[in-house]
Amino acid sequence: MQRVAELAGVSTATVSRVLAGVPGATSEATAERVRRTASHLGYVVNAVASSLRSRQTSTIGLILADVANPFFGRLASGVESVLSRAGYSLLLANSGNSVETEAQLLRVMREKQVDAIILASAGGSGAHIREALAKGSRIVLADTEYPDLPLDAVVIDNAAAAEEAAGHLLDLGHRRLAVLTGPLEASFDRERLAGVGRAFAKRGLALDPSLVARGDSTFEAGKRATRTLLAAAPTAVFATNNLMCAGAITALLDAGLRIPEDISVLGFDDMDWFPIFRPAISAVAQPVFELGVAAAERLLEVLEADGPGAAPRRAVLETTLILRASTASCPPA
Amino acid sequence: MQRVAELAGVSTATVSRVLAGVPGATSEATAERVRRTASHLGYVVNAVASSLRSRQTSTIGLILADVANPFFGRLASGVESVLSRAGYSLLLANSGNSVETEAQLLRVMREKQVDAIILASAGGSGAHIREALAKGSRIVLADTEYPDLPLDAVVIDNAAAAEEAAGHLLDLGHRRLAVLTGPLEASFDRERLAGVGRAFAKRGLALDPSLVARGDSTFEAGKRATRTLLAAAPTAVFATNNLMCAGAITALLDAGLRIPEDISVLGFDDMDWFPIFRPAISAVAQPVFELGVAAAERLLEVLEADGPGAAPRRAVLETTLILRASTASCPPA
Repeated sequence: MQRVAELAGVSTATVSRVLAGVPGATSEATAERVRRTASHLGYVVNAVASSLRSRQTSTIGLILADVANPFFGRLASGVESVLSRAGYSLLLANSGNSVETEAQLLRVMREKQVDAIILASAGGSGAHIREALAKGSRIVLADTEYPDLPLDAVVIDNAAAAEEAAGHLLDLGHRRLAVLTGPLEASFDRERLAGVGRAFAKRGLALDPSLVARGDSTFEAGKRATRTLLAAAPTAVFATNNLMCAGAITALLDAGLRIPEDISVLGFDDMDWFPIFRPAISAVAQPVFELGVAAAERLLEVLEADGPGAAPRRAVLETTLILRASTASCPPA
Repeated sequence: MQRVAELAGVSTATVSRVLAGVPGATSEATAERVRRTASHLGYVVNAVASSLRSRQTSTIGLILADVANPFFGRLASGVESVLSRAGYSLLLANSGNSVETEAQLLRVMREKQVDAIILASAGGSGAHIREALAKGSRIVLADTEYPDLPLDAVVIDNAAAAEEAAGHLLDLGHRRLAVLTGPLEASFDRERLAGVGRAFAKRGLALDPSLVARGDSTFEAGKRATRTLLAAAPTAVFATNNLMCAGAITALLDAGLRIPEDISVLGFDDMDWFPIFRPAISAVAQPVFELGVAAAERLLEVLEADGPGAAPRRAVLETTLILRASTASCPPA
């Protein structure tokens, strides 16, 4: 493979991807050159690939913020679908939304000599990421980003998505809009909250801070936060992440409230059961699998560049506001 | 460190491992010589240890059958809660229910020199696990087991749990009971189906094979399988895993059927939204987090034993049949 790469004038990563038939691995002209060179050298793809498989494996690390959240499971599936076709194995790790653990895992990944890392970061100042970069780690961000760091990132436009969602509730007449948010350590949490603020501001309104509740992005946190918020008598709840939304729905039904007659509910990140729930739950749908795919594809490009590369790129994927039965006009006071 | 290594006649790697207290780094005599030399030279261990800590970490591997399934996310959380307290980092990998990928990942884990592996296996003959054991991997099984392999395992009594669940539906008068099952590669799938058969047999009945549908344990597979099964007019569905159950519910509601008036639904593995769904979904609840905890605790014992250890142990955790509103008496024909 080394020899094919030298003769074809590409990296070994390109050779393996071209020979594995990964679409878009490189230009068609280059791919053809690689295939011709390989066939010239009598490079038997299957045999070598299988011997490689048993002795030495190219591995990519993927650090997730919460492995117990199906969002990250789907993200990992997207990453894997690309990397496995390209002949890479994927090692995952879970920061459990802890920046300290994430720093530790970046070190573990370096020790284990993964070729590069896709990081769905728990957030923080980014000092730990800066350190990993200084020590030579190659990193692509997924989901979270750090505008101050020279890193490729694949994200959604969180502020715009949240603004549209909150704007929809405001346009339904809701003024006492409760907002459930994660710990605000990560860029997506902060941007979603900023988007909500923008929706209010654009309508000459102001978000009541006593109607904003933070939690650690778990089901239980959503339940707890909603119970507390009910004292402030909101007419709508915007849960800015999936598990907190599930917790919120549970707390509302436990409190004997009817959705949407008494209170509207809007979630962020669609879940399998949202469309079949009664009422079906409105939510901002993220292209989660595609986010993983795009991050992995960008990572393969970064590995290709192999050395002080091009300027970092930021890819922004589209979200969709899906309106179902859980959101309705504000009930009369 | 160089100087200690020279004087003690060992490599610097050995010095660092001995001073970091890594068990089995070298013979006890050599270790003692290294420690004496270090103390002689006034070598300050703490500084070294902390620099070591940032460079070398004890890691455990955890191979999951499907990272996109929240069951395995919760299992991973349980494993992590124990290992992080014990000072281990956890590297995860996803076989995506493929035995071939699982074999590949066992090799990757070995190359990456994890100290031991917790395996939530996708199943198969076990040849790949036998190979990993022969090459020195230390493995504890979680969720799936291989009675022929000398391995510790932490499991539930799948056959008994499924027998109780199916028996409940039979006792409600259902005879046309549809069963959704995973690919039957793993022990838990086979045992659950066997349990269903036992429930029929004990009542002098026989399970109609045309009412059993296999799928790949995903939401989509559950939906597809249920759509097909509807032609056979079942009065109850027992979905023997969580995502297929969600898919089954979706397919039933899409077909305009009322649960439980037209058809009863019983799932395996309780999910956050089962209790709040209308109707609330009946299911066999597994102690998933605790399964992870128990597997990790057993692994620490295995690591402790260090060497050809005691006979493998099998731990069986309790399940609970939770009856909610989705299961009711068989409607009159």
